[in-house]
Amino acid sequence: TQLYRITLLPGDGIGPEIMAVAVEVLKVIGQQLDLSFEFQEALMGGAAIDAKGEPLPAETLEWCKSSDAVLLAAIGGYKWDTLPRHLRPETGLLGLRAGLGLFANLRPAKILPQLVDASSLKREIVEGVDIMVVRELTGGVYFGQPKGIFATETGEKRGVNTMAYTESEIDRIGRVGFETAQKRGKKLCSVDKANVLEVSQLWRDRITALAPEYPDVELSHMYVDNAAMQLVRWPKQFDTIVTSNLFGDILSDAAAMLTGSIGMLPSASLGASGPGVFEPVHGSAPDIAGQDKANPLAQILSAAMMLRYGLNQPVAADRIEQAVLTVLDKGNRTGDIMSEGMTLLGCQAMGKALIQAL
Amino acid sequence: TQLYRITLLPGDGIGPEIMAVAVEVLKVIGQQLDLSFEFQEALMGGAAIDAKGEPLPAETLEWCKSSDAVLLAAIGGYKWDTLPRHLRPETGLLGLRAGLGLFANLRPAKILPQLVDASSLKREIVEGVDIMVVRELTGGVYFGQPKGIFATETGEKRGVNTMAYTESEIDRIGRVGFETAQKRGKKLCSVDKANVLEVSQLWRDRITALAPEYPDVELSHMYVDNAAMQLVRWPKQFDTIVTSNLFGDILSDAAAMLTGSIGMLPSASLGASGPGVFEPVHGSAPDIAGQDKANPLAQILSAAMMLRYGLNQPVAADRIEQAVLTVLDKGNRTGDIMSEGMTLLGCQAMGKALIQAL
Ligand SMILES: CC(C)[C@H](C(=O)O)[C@@H](O)C(=O)O
Ligand SMILES: CC(C)[C@H](C(=O)O)[C@@H](O)C(=O)O
Repeated sequence: TQLYRITLLPGDGIGPEIMAVAVEVLKVIGQQLDLSFEFQEALMGGAAIDAKGEPLPAETLEWCKSSDAVLLAAIGGYKWDTLPRHLRPETGLLGLRAGLGLFANLRPAKILPQLVDASSLKREIVEGVDIMVVRELTGGVYFGQPKGIFATETGEKRGVNTMAYTESEIDRIGRVGFETAQKRGKKLCSVDKANVLEVSQLWRDRITALAPEYPDVELSHMYVDNAAMQLVRWPKQFDTIVTSNLFGDILSDAAAMLTGSIGMLPSASLGASGPGVFEPVHGSAPDIAGQDKANPLAQILSAAMMLRYGLNQPVAADRIEQAVLTVLDKGNRTGDIMSEGMTLLGCQAMGKALIQAL
Repeated sequence: TQLYRITLLPGDGIGPEIMAVAVEVLKVIGQQLDLSFEFQEALMGGAAIDAKGEPLPAETLEWCKSSDAVLLAAIGGYKWDTLPRHLRPETGLLGLRAGLGLFANLRPAKILPQLVDASSLKREIVEGVDIMVVRELTGGVYFGQPKGIFATETGEKRGVNTMAYTESEIDRIGRVGFETAQKRGKKLCSVDKANVLEVSQLWRDRITALAPEYPDVELSHMYVDNAAMQLVRWPKQFDTIVTSNLFGDILSDAAAMLTGSIGMLPSASLGASGPGVFEPVHGSAPDIAGQDKANPLAQILSAAMMLRYGLNQPVAADRIEQAVLTVLDKGNRTGDIMSEGMTLLGCQAMGKALIQAL
């Protein structure tokens, strides 16, 4: 039996409910494939602020570091939105990314045939869309120094952040982009704003310099404003996108929304070595928390991404992803993806249906 | 007779063709309403690089400064894309914005009922969409210092740009946002990334502080990643959006593409005093230049925006906008907005149809 130590970060809002379902699913797949999971639950986000006075307690980060992978649900909520910045749930998330060195964020935006009509875009535009956004996650304007709110000579305040990348930072995320494209449709689109920003010019130069090492990948470059347009206009032109932290934040969310069902989308955050963090794209949805209404499928698919990218167990990942398609084929839907003629299930019932399908 | 001095910047690609049509339209409306225009053509963008070795010659900027308004067509093309940054067409555009102090960029994204089906989004999602993006245009990461590509201690390169705003920069664009919302649906959404960026925190604080002065405007705040999602999900929730230079660049393009017909969209760039610059949202489309295929309507609508916002001639602006609807109602279409059963016209013929409608 292969033993894996998994840190669970249920977080806030609907987090604990969907995490509970994902853990059940992992237990079942473990029995089937002779994998054993040791789960350790830890506090993060609002839950950690309430219990410990800080969004990422030191012991949480330590547990994460010493485990094989981290499964995160969702953090944040209105309740903590007015706290000072260093006490905000989001600050915990940034600390986790930096603390684990998770420089590569993989965000798939894939339309499932069963859910095409959930999209706000026309069927012929989105049918078959399958985009992977590779977002840099520990650099750029999110972390650049100097940053802060400073007094100018005239006494007025000036807010400052620094958008910066070194060559080696660009190279390592660029390689993840090329390697990801190699495993997919072999098309990589690098997104920047090189017509205005020097940091983007360096980005473009380095990505271009890497290209000869990946002759099987077709590389293109696109400005971020145009990329935002093209995602709306004709998303099927994209296979793999590689981009910086801020542009990836914006474009991966736009791409996710093309599917119309962000309750279905997982993500993976990976470092050079050490544990990755796997989490749904959606938020903590405090308005429906505790009502057994949440869609657990993104969390379950995040567990599948953990098996695939974090634990190198592709068979287990395949099985879970297949089971998700099966429950959808049977007409099972949570409220967020409900449509006429389908069967409405709560969070737990959806989990049971999935285990059945496994 | 009221006399106006207009600097024309036809620029590159399809620029000269669509500009010629817009000038004809202005002449006709001038005759009708007893306005007289003195047109002065000047070089900018690739055309200026070829003729003068720089994208924004000093005399062009001087002419612009001494005129009542500037009508710009489009700049750029593959030909100049590989030049060093200070010689690129885009650098001329940034120089024009800075040189004229054009801190406020108004970008409407309005779906015309005649063209709803051009959108990649479903009819019920986009029908009636009417968004105005108010983008800050002379600050933020586009202009912040320090910027450049520097050597680090280890000898590798580091690309750096600075995203910065002072309180007064935020206040003056914030006021344009509120005032624009007052003239429209009285809803203002300020977009930032205040959960991560200090510069956005200051932005949000200042916009919030201005709100009591505009009690008739309903203010909301949204993170930029969420705004990108919401534009795709349900664009009708937006009336007026106010945001920073970079976020406005990305979101206004996404919003424009919701309409499916960016060949129809004008924009205005305004300063505290002095002439504004009016230009289409679309680019110079070098691939169809010189073939009489371009859609001149965005350029014509930019002339209308010039009359409305730059010359305070709302009646003339109304007439032109009405004439655009009339030609569309009659079934006239250029190639980019062509659909079954309509009449395909070239650039010049569309101009003639419009003058007819006037
Ligand atoms: C919560 C926030 C800090 C975070 C980000 O901006 O990275 C989120 O939007 C995301 O994309 O994971
Ligand atoms: C050409 C470029 C410099 C410009 C910008 O980024 O502002 C363009 O994208 C725009 O939106 O007007």
